[in-house]
Amino acid sequence: MSSNKLFQYSIVSALMDGVASTGMPIAMLLAHGNHGLGTFRHIAGEMIILDGEVFQMKSDGSISKISATAMDIISPFAMITNFEPSDRIVAFLQSKAALFDLLTELLPMSRNHYVGIRVEGSFSSITVRTVGGQKNAHEGLAELGKHQVSHTLRSEAEEIVQGTIIGFRSPAYMQGVSVAGDHLHFVTADRTKGGHVLAFVTLDKVEVSAAAISTVHIELPTHDVEFNEATLKGEHEAIEAVEG
Amino acid sequence: MSSNKLFQYSIVSALMDGVASTGMPIAMLLAHGNHGLGTFRHIAGEMIILDGEVFQMKSDGSISKISATAMDIISPFAMITNFEPSDRIVAFLQSKAALFDLLTELLPMSRNHYVGIRVEGSFSSITVRTVGGQKNAHEGLAELGKHQVSHTLRSEAEEIVQGTIIGFRSPAYMQGVSVAGDHLHFVTADRTKGGHVLAFVTLDKVEVSAAAISTVHIELPTHDVEFNEATLKGEHEAIEAVEG
Repeated sequence: MSSNKLFQYSIVSALMDGVASTGMPIAMLLAHGNHGLGTFRHIAGEMIILDGEVFQMKSDGSISKISATAMDIISPFAMITNFEPSDRIVAFLQSKAALFDLLTELLPMSRNHYVGIRVEGSFSSITVRTVGGQKNAHEGLAELGKHQVSHTLRSEAEEIVQGTIIGFRSPAYMQGVSVAGDHLHFVTADRTKGGHVLAFVTLDKVEVSAAAISTVHIELPTHDVEFNEATLKGEHEAIEAVEG
Repeated sequence: MSSNKLFQYSIVSALMDGVASTGMPIAMLLAHGNHGLGTFRHIAGEMIILDGEVFQMKSDGSISKISATAMDIISPFAMITNFEPSDRIVAFLQSKAALFDLLTELLPMSRNHYVGIRVEGSFSSITVRTVGGQKNAHEGLAELGKHQVSHTLRSEAEEIVQGTIIGFRSPAYMQGVSVAGDHLHFVTADRTKGGHVLAFVTLDKVEVSAAAISTVHIELPTHDVEFNEATLKGEHEAIEAVEG
């Protein structure tokens, strides 16, 4: 499998429209890489894929490891690549915006590309959210976002928050297909806490690695009445509010 | 090569921004299919690919056949597939809008997919345009569109306008990446006239063939300063005006 090609199943506008009853089995998704993020059937929590391991992070705070060969567990939206970083740098990061600026500087010829992103280290604080999942079919992500649970994990004297951020930058012209800007998920090193990253400050210098992505493969849902009937208008402000 | 997968080089917003100095060699493009459309370096006219043959249709009315193995002739934007129609129907079509409606009816489960389109037959009239090409670097497609040359070919007693329309329907959520709606190019059976289709009425029943496309491969330009610096805002109204 060649590296740094993006494989994406469905589009984020479909999630906004609540298209989440069916999807791609995890085993099939993992044929396309080892680094990714997404969600699960009925938008039940957040997916992170790191080093080929898949975790489901739910709003009740639980984390389950998902078998990489699962055919019965599906994802209605996911992005994955075989991540081979072209650039590595250590940096102290005051914010998610600081990471954005650092990556822009690191990959000056990829202003209009996708970027695979990984951040590894200790955080003085990191705020993550997990969506609770659909209670009714077609309930959209914007609605779920209103009831999302967010937690801030903080390093204390006795306990240091260590973990990995995995994600993608998507170009602005892809808003609605992907999530424009940096879309990041996090899991702790002990794999007990995590979610969609809203904000963070690193404790010390962390390792940032990145790779530009210029090959994009999008697999649209087929034989899926929900997807077929969705309006997929992809209100950009709503996506930014819930996924920014 | 598997069928009905879309390969697209660059995005239409890049053409709108006049990103057209470099691109993909024709020989490399043709590795991805036998049915397609696009343009050439400096937006010099319209490209049509039918049955693996590539033609360049210029605003001076000339048509050149391009070698399928050309490495020195490049395309800054193209869409191509290995077209294997799933549906065929014969129909008398009063307008481009009638073709749109027919295809929507023919592929009811592909409202949100791409569609490969081919129309073969005789036309009582068909209006095509050809853009004149950039006079200055960065001149955008909207600007070129203002000076496009359009011709209406009409069947007369002595001469019948016969030919082939090749194109793609792209979903609305892809506007800016592709051209939302039906994007069609035409060439006459004797390969002497053609261009981007603005309007048509068929003379008699024509053969319409189509295939839904749910696998989309987008190759973004790399090592391309123009692409890197483009804003790629993809003004939707401007795209509709010039490509609709």
